[in-house]
Amino acid sequence: MNVRVGRRTRHYRTVAFDASKNAVLLIEQRLLPHEFQVVAVRDFRETARAIQEMIVRGAGAIGATAAYGLAQGARAFRGGDIRKFSCHVETVYQTLKAARPTAIDPVNAMNEIRRAMSAGETVQQQQALTRAAAEQFADDDVKHCEAIGRHGAPLIRDGMRVLTHCNAGWLAFVDVGTATAPLYAAQAQGKKFHVFCDETRPRSQGATLTAWELAGQGIAHEIIADNAAGHLMQRGEIDLVIVGSDRTLGRTGEVANKIGTYTKAVLAERHNIPFYVAIPLSTIDWELSSGSEIPIEERDQSEVLGAWGALRNPKSEIRNPKSEIRNPKSVRRVYMRVANPTSRARNPGFDVTPPELISGIITPAGIFKPNELWRNRRELGHET
Amino acid sequence: MNVRVGRRTRHYRTVAFDASKNAVLLIEQRLLPHEFQVVAVRDFRETARAIQEMIVRGAGAIGATAAYGLAQGARAFRGGDIRKFSCHVETVYQTLKAARPTAIDPVNAMNEIRRAMSAGETVQQQQALTRAAAEQFADDDVKHCEAIGRHGAPLIRDGMRVLTHCNAGWLAFVDVGTATAPLYAAQAQGKKFHVFCDETRPRSQGATLTAWELAGQGIAHEIIADNAAGHLMQRGEIDLVIVGSDRTLGRTGEVANKIGTYTKAVLAERHNIPFYVAIPLSTIDWELSSGSEIPIEERDQSEVLGAWGALRNPKSEIRNPKSEIRNPKSVRRVYMRVANPTSRARNPGFDVTPPELISGIITPAGIFKPNELWRNRRELGHET
Repeated sequence: MNVRVGRRTRHYRTVAFDASKNAVLLIEQRLLPHEFQVVAVRDFRETARAIQEMIVRGAGAIGATAAYGLAQGARAFRGGDIRKFSCHVETVYQTLKAARPTAIDPVNAMNEIRRAMSAGETVQQQQALTRAAAEQFADDDVKHCEAIGRHGAPLIRDGMRVLTHCNAGWLAFVDVGTATAPLYAAQAQGKKFHVFCDETRPRSQGATLTAWELAGQGIAHEIIADNAAGHLMQRGEIDLVIVGSDRTLGRTGEVANKIGTYTKAVLAERHNIPFYVAIPLSTIDWELSSGSEIPIEERDQSEVLGAWGALRNPKSEIRNPKSEIRNPKSVRRVYMRVANPTSRARNPGFDVTPPELISGIITPAGIFKPNELWRNRRELGHET
Repeated sequence: MNVRVGRRTRHYRTVAFDASKNAVLLIEQRLLPHEFQVVAVRDFRETARAIQEMIVRGAGAIGATAAYGLAQGARAFRGGDIRKFSCHVETVYQTLKAARPTAIDPVNAMNEIRRAMSAGETVQQQQALTRAAAEQFADDDVKHCEAIGRHGAPLIRDGMRVLTHCNAGWLAFVDVGTATAPLYAAQAQGKKFHVFCDETRPRSQGATLTAWELAGQGIAHEIIADNAAGHLMQRGEIDLVIVGSDRTLGRTGEVANKIGTYTKAVLAERHNIPFYVAIPLSTIDWELSSGSEIPIEERDQSEVLGAWGALRNPKSEIRNPKSEIRNPKSVRRVYMRVANPTSRARNPGFDVTPPELISGIITPAGIFKPNELWRNRRELGHET
């Protein structure tokens, strides 16, 4: 989507490929929202490291990065020995897979690329096919998000105030995003609306990433503390909630998403505010039969006990970034202890929202009630 | 309550008076939880500044500080001219009142001191009476909080997990606190329990002040992000909620308190978890007839857009404070921008919880259902 760079606004994807340099281009997300930088990664091992160190994060985005990384690794092979080439590709595959061992998207993405390349006979043919398949994978990710936007946009009417939680935006995918897709589509249709971004402690993805996205796109928005949404709903200042999902149970319609999502769903129900979840098909889990089976990651307590932010260097005040590659000394990104130094914290990363609190699930195939997913499983990509 | 200073644990009040030096002793709350320091303020103008600059905060604590400040100012008068003395006391009164112009507690406290001093005839008699009355005011504040503790302690059973929001602890009063009073009383009865402290963004009083209090008192506790309580309730990990209140409507039982309180009440109701509010009688508003009439302060957006915390000086790591008066260079307290630099924020400071979500209101006079306050108004200090 759009990024304001100085006075210009330019379109970027989160992940792209520069074939002439065999480089994967990534937005350096760890510097956002304080600095905007695009990193050109020239070696598949570096691409794996970029995934591991979270220069790129988000299901769709790391899937596409792994797809490009596999193409990049395959294309770096010199020679015509197909057996050696296959071994090399296997190394690339395992290296990229190991970067985020529990994530499913990189594996699915790379399997798709390998399937496509098997149509080629020579090393050169297979190398060419990997690149085409990776581009196809990235384009499909964008198309799915655009479809979510098309289905979701009618929910947004002129003058509405929409609440979001965390970041299921274009930065988490190749472009467009899921929870943000209806917003971007409604904006393209000329609708005017206002977005409240939940800060989303402890990692503050709403205040940092979602707010940064909306600012670049020119969508009116305000950040609120996670504590404030209940009050705003009570005073009639929120008309619609749209969130993303990390895992949606196809059998039950339960939705696992960033911690705090469940709270917003409970509040929305009390105030009769529609609560929608936007998801790509890849996040539907067709196996589990209860949300209580979803493992809830207990994350490091330092996230709750402090915060990451930017200390300004008085010699170079940050306003809008002036150039794409910025002097990293203009902003010092630091971790700061906020809480009492002798206290500990609990830090569950996700929660599970039951289907009765969800008005609808916006997918690339249309909007479904949570209890309609299983009945429509073929349309939603379930493979049996 | 107790403060751990190095290896020793000592009892402190938030506000006290050193008559030999005519000094008001205040815990420097702006340095908490990173440093513990007691400031001796030797002039009433400085005491007013300490209130204004929030070295001391919290309804009961600023009331007692103003009471001591009035005594301090009166006692600093030299000579025997009662007319000049009265003018001087009026100046002291106005100076202390102007420190937090919208707060009612300093005014109520100082009126009480002035009433008491009017029994004296000479300057010296009146000076002596101010001091005695200020000590009485502070002791009464403690007694009221202890009474809240006595009434609230039976709600806490062995093994319970109790959620608190913000800080209505001893730091906000002269000692003991309101929402914390039942915890301290239950601890004194030998009960074992666990407290979850909501971080309470944007000002993080739960993560800083309440956690610091509980650590000093040796009560088992963990800090959680404001987003996490709903999940913990869903998994059956919270048995009781106790919060404070900034204003409770005597006619309706509605409770205004720190932003996010309403959300916790809605969640508690959904999970059938008792939700109690602990209040001193001074916070009951007998006039307003609807919570919608309570003005909700919209605070500065910088609170939401960033955070205050401590950067450690690598040369002097902070652990437990080693001495009472510490080298302030050991910790650098800084404000850090967290959010996207080009975004704005909404920051309502309080919300209103309706009576149907409240199990009971714990007062120094006992526990009442919200709709019983008006019927029992005489017992609760309503003066008509």
